Amino acid sequence: MTNPILRKAIDGFRWEDVEMRAYKDEATAPFRSVTRQVLASAPDLSGELRYFEVAPGGWTTLERHQHVHAVTILRGHGRALVGDQVIEIGPLDLVTVPAWSWHQFRAAADKPLGFLCMVDATRDRPQLPTAEERAALETLPDVAAFLNGP
Amino acid sequence: MTNPILRKAIDGFRWEDVEMRAYKDEATAPFRSVTRQVLASAPDLSGELRYFEVAPGGWTTLERHQHVHAVTILRGHGRALVGDQVIEIGPLDLVTVPAWSWHQFRAAADKPLGFLCMVDATRDRPQLPTAEERAALETLPDVAAFLNGP
Repeated sequence: MTNPILRKAIDGFRWEDVEMRAYKDEATAPFRSVTRQVLASAPDLSGELRYFEVAPGGWTTLERHQHVHAVTILRGHGRALVGDQVIEIGPLDLVTVPAWSWHQFRAAADKPLGFLCMVDATRDRPQLPTAEERAALETLPDVAAFLNGP
Repeated sequence: MTNPILRKAIDGFRWEDVEMRAYKDEATAPFRSVTRQVLASAPDLSGELRYFEVAPGGWTTLERHQHVHAVTILRGHGRALVGDQVIEIGPLDLVTVPAWSWHQFRAAADKPLGFLCMVDATRDRPQLPTAEERAALETLPDVAAFLNGP
């Protein structure tokens, strides 16, 4: 790392000395067109700050976990499912994903959706929905439309 | 709070249901033209995310502490002192303030400087420099020019 104090932004929501990573290590969780960059993570920090970018038409994994997400949208537009709410999101909006809430982020068709996500450094692994849990979510028409969206 | 899951951004780097606060509670710490908004803070989050805005020509308190700052610039330009480094900062740059590093952020004369700052929710109180500590910092010409800047 050239300077541990300053990492300059590079055009296109990249940063000096910040690796572009796969969104998920595991190949088992379904998602489409998402990248991850870890912006702040250190032994003497209780939280971590990550930047996720969902390409146009892409979506994050539908999942839940005990740990909380504190999300700040940085670019683009899209929608998110949090619990049983489908919300419209755009630049600088703040999204809280409470413990054990099912959640997914979907980018609009025309632009990438980029957001910061603060989490606890020590956290549990996400759970994927069972077929029954997914069916229960889809009993809500707007949630079904969101989950099966374009 | 209208919706605990979504707090929409409002023009001008404000947010629904987020209070604009004084930068410091105490009247003793020197600073100029800084506001604070707490964007994420909850009993089940180890970190906190705050948005600070320094008006044109303003500056934050010169201070140090054990806890680490993970800063993401959101708007404007300016300079920061971190340890003995004076750095130029602009949109989306990442600044890490290590434990016990003296630090101060200064906005450029023409635009506000706004940044996110992630910290541990549980943290120590800042220390101000003694006259001797300030004099020691000012033995470095570029640090002296920064601290006594316009």
